Amino acid sequence: MLKFLAVVAFAVVTVAANEPVYKTKTFNAKLDHFSFTSNATFPLRYLINDTYWNPSSTVAPIFFYTGNEGDITMFAENSGLVWEFAPHFEALIVFAEHRYYGESLPFGNLSFTDPKYSGYLSSSQALADYIDLIAELKIAYPKKQKHHPTPVIAFGGSYGGMLSAWIRMKYPGVITGALAASAPIWQFTNMTSCDAFNRVTTSAYGESANQGCVDTIKKSWSAIDRLGANDAGRAWLTQTFKPCKPISGKSNVKDLKDWLTDMWVNLAMVNYPYPANFLAPLPGHPVREVCKRMVTDVSDDKKLLLGIFEGATLYFNGTGTLKCMDFDSQGTQDLGTLGWDYQSCTEMVMPMCDRGDTMFEKVAWDIKTVSDNCYAQFKVRPNVNYVRNLYGGKEISASSNIIFSNGLLDPWSSGGVLNNVSDTSIAVILPGGAHHIDLRASNPLDPPSVKQARKFYRSIFKQWVNTVRNEYEN
Amino acid sequence: MLKFLAVVAFAVVTVAANEPVYKTKTFNAKLDHFSFTSNATFPLRYLINDTYWNPSSTVAPIFFYTGNEGDITMFAENSGLVWEFAPHFEALIVFAEHRYYGESLPFGNLSFTDPKYSGYLSSSQALADYIDLIAELKIAYPKKQKHHPTPVIAFGGSYGGMLSAWIRMKYPGVITGALAASAPIWQFTNMTSCDAFNRVTTSAYGESANQGCVDTIKKSWSAIDRLGANDAGRAWLTQTFKPCKPISGKSNVKDLKDWLTDMWVNLAMVNYPYPANFLAPLPGHPVREVCKRMVTDVSDDKKLLLGIFEGATLYFNGTGTLKCMDFDSQGTQDLGTLGWDYQSCTEMVMPMCDRGDTMFEKVAWDIKTVSDNCYAQFKVRPNVNYVRNLYGGKEISASSNIIFSNGLLDPWSSGGVLNNVSDTSIAVILPGGAHHIDLRASNPLDPPSVKQARKFYRSIFKQWVNTVRNEYEN
Repeated sequence: MLKFLAVVAFAVVTVAANEPVYKTKTFNAKLDHFSFTSNATFPLRYLINDTYWNPSSTVAPIFFYTGNEGDITMFAENSGLVWEFAPHFEALIVFAEHRYYGESLPFGNLSFTDPKYSGYLSSSQALADYIDLIAELKIAYPKKQKHHPTPVIAFGGSYGGMLSAWIRMKYPGVITGALAASAPIWQFTNMTSCDAFNRVTTSAYGESANQGCVDTIKKSWSAIDRLGANDAGRAWLTQTFKPCKPISGKSNVKDLKDWLTDMWVNLAMVNYPYPANFLAPLPGHPVREVCKRMVTDVSDDKKLLLGIFEGATLYFNGTGTLKCMDFDSQGTQDLGTLGWDYQSCTEMVMPMCDRGDTMFEKVAWDIKTVSDNCYAQFKVRPNVNYVRNLYGGKEISASSNIIFSNGLLDPWSSGGVLNNVSDTSIAVILPGGAHHIDLRASNPLDPPSVKQARKFYRSIFKQWVNTVRNEYEN
Repeated sequence: MLKFLAVVAFAVVTVAANEPVYKTKTFNAKLDHFSFTSNATFPLRYLINDTYWNPSSTVAPIFFYTGNEGDITMFAENSGLVWEFAPHFEALIVFAEHRYYGESLPFGNLSFTDPKYSGYLSSSQALADYIDLIAELKIAYPKKQKHHPTPVIAFGGSYGGMLSAWIRMKYPGVITGALAASAPIWQFTNMTSCDAFNRVTTSAYGESANQGCVDTIKKSWSAIDRLGANDAGRAWLTQTFKPCKPISGKSNVKDLKDWLTDMWVNLAMVNYPYPANFLAPLPGHPVREVCKRMVTDVSDDKKLLLGIFEGATLYFNGTGTLKCMDFDSQGTQDLGTLGWDYQSCTEMVMPMCDRGDTMFEKVAWDIKTVSDNCYAQFKVRPNVNYVRNLYGGKEISASSNIIFSNGLLDPWSSGGVLNNVSDTSIAVILPGGAHHIDLRASNPLDPPSVKQARKFYRSIFKQWVNTVRNEYEN
């Protein structure tokens, strides 16, 4: 698997306490929505709940989650906001799976073996799947008052939030408005500096824990290098970090560092103020908790790295059931990392680098190497301007009815929309918030910003559905 | 060739007196913009003029004609407005050819032989070609002030106008605004009654000429039927209408009626108030002129049809050089009828019918037959909801900066946008105007509505380009 930051699976989520109730269905999605070379279709999975749906209401909407890079059940379970809001809006709830993820593989096991199979994995095709599905749903769930329009509110977090913003931009006649939570639509070439992500992550550690933790992590890389430079040191690293494969050479040392890098990022993303389950249970404020376990202000490499391991243990092995640490896993096994690797190699090319002024190691963004690795793995090469040309880049002032929310503790806020872009495409900033915390079920420990945001969303959504009715009736 | 009204080539245009000056270039367009199955590209032709282009101006735009179903040189020669406005805006002028028309055939002579070749002919792909071309042009023609944005105003008439409206809707970050002249974006299933087109055409004849002409045309169909019912009558029809192939059977009689039907429609479209050249020179107000040649209020079939032939002669054979009338030609040979037939068989499915209350014959819209014919010719079947799902149908109130202009004498105004759809997506009605007359070069004989519209366009375009500058500078 490619190991560069851009392929960090960035929608780490946790399992909600209350499992949502839904029916699982499929619909026949066109393989190719924009050409007519074939009529092929494939079953796209979606989850649906019509408990609250009121077809007699002129304003009852469809709540449509634009599924992202993973099994859709995971997103359904981690988007409590949608379920909590639905009764108040008498909404039909739909979570649609993104093609090439979960159970929605157009070519089964062959899906990623050749461009002739993998080539239909694109954001455009996924959005068109959702539009066709909505058209079918409107027939299956008609309003009692014939021809009365059904508002559709799109929801999404992370890449799913990018999709919810983009589906409103591209299909505003179908999608009434969108909540794009933690959607880094500007994490692309010439839009955001490639080092912004690491800088935001570092600052989140400083704010959530303290500068000592940042310094310790910063020092850990050279400590690993020093120990990794000889057999005795590698033996110590193996004994300490308990990898499933021993650290016997340089590449294993790099694997260790990549594995830790991913962990720090993932930990920052799920840095919620309340206990949440992801693989193993994490306490509230996990960044602070992990940092607490680490000794700071030490010059002894081994002492320092023992602390780092303590931190990693909390993240990866809170329950103590793992026998060894799998460096090939990014701790995100529910996500479709193969699919996301592919998307990062075609359209979703998010440059990542570090200038040496963060808690991470200095690293350049090397598009040539990225491209060559992509070709080796998938026989495709990234197009760095694709997303800009397709979705407008920073020129989105013509968009409307989009809420871009970003938690300031979230690394991905680096590529998010942090200022209003038009009268009705607006930015919501969530101090104290990690990755799409606002999409999650409400929690008494939510930061005030998140509590306030939810109230605001509710009033905006009401405006949106009323506008659809008023436009129709006038 | 399919013969149903929906495939009437609907962008009949005339050659301007002053030939525009341009360079002809090509760029490598991606065959498929929305999937990654292949890297294939093909040369897409475009015409460019940089005489007026001022890179030092902060507001100088690109005037971009979104080519439609024909050879792009024809549209360049018949869109005088673009050339007349360019000096005032210091604009770069570009006319881009639509893929699968003119010289922009991705697979040469094979292009329509199989869905694996023809399948990439779609409006989405064409729009994406234009967006990529614009990105290249911005690099080739940079502003002197680095990073200063270049506004782009899209122009188009007829299907080209549909494309100019849609490209603004789909890519508002690239396209600042659009003039969509005579763009029947609502000539689709469940948007416009299928008989509207014939009703508007009939009313245009009544207004341009008189009710007698309408009645005569209406009576001609049964007169043809009566004469076409026996050998002697068919011989008379052959002698009178001078077809290249004799009218010897029922199907030839139908060909005659289809040929006349197309003619009446085409004549209404080019019913300009000044002489214009199309195939043969036409006088100003050609509908009135043709009707003058026809006797009215007659019960004698032959006398009536001789008048009809006189009319047809003015349209088809004004210079008297044709030896016979080719019923297979719709008098629109510069248009890519094969390409348009194909598009009518996939996404551009425009239902046409007649309830017997117009000057045309009663005819039902029979989607099953249409579909079967499509399959027989192209191995594709029409999708009647495709355009609605893709471009929003009547739900386009979120669009902005689009001028929808429609001449009230234009048959295609039946499917046009005749009311404002938002604050800045507005309708301009042109009484006395035929098919996209406002896109043509100005003429002293233009109706007042067209003269006024041109002044209005100029002020709106100024607003658009200024807004781009102001948004950038603020």
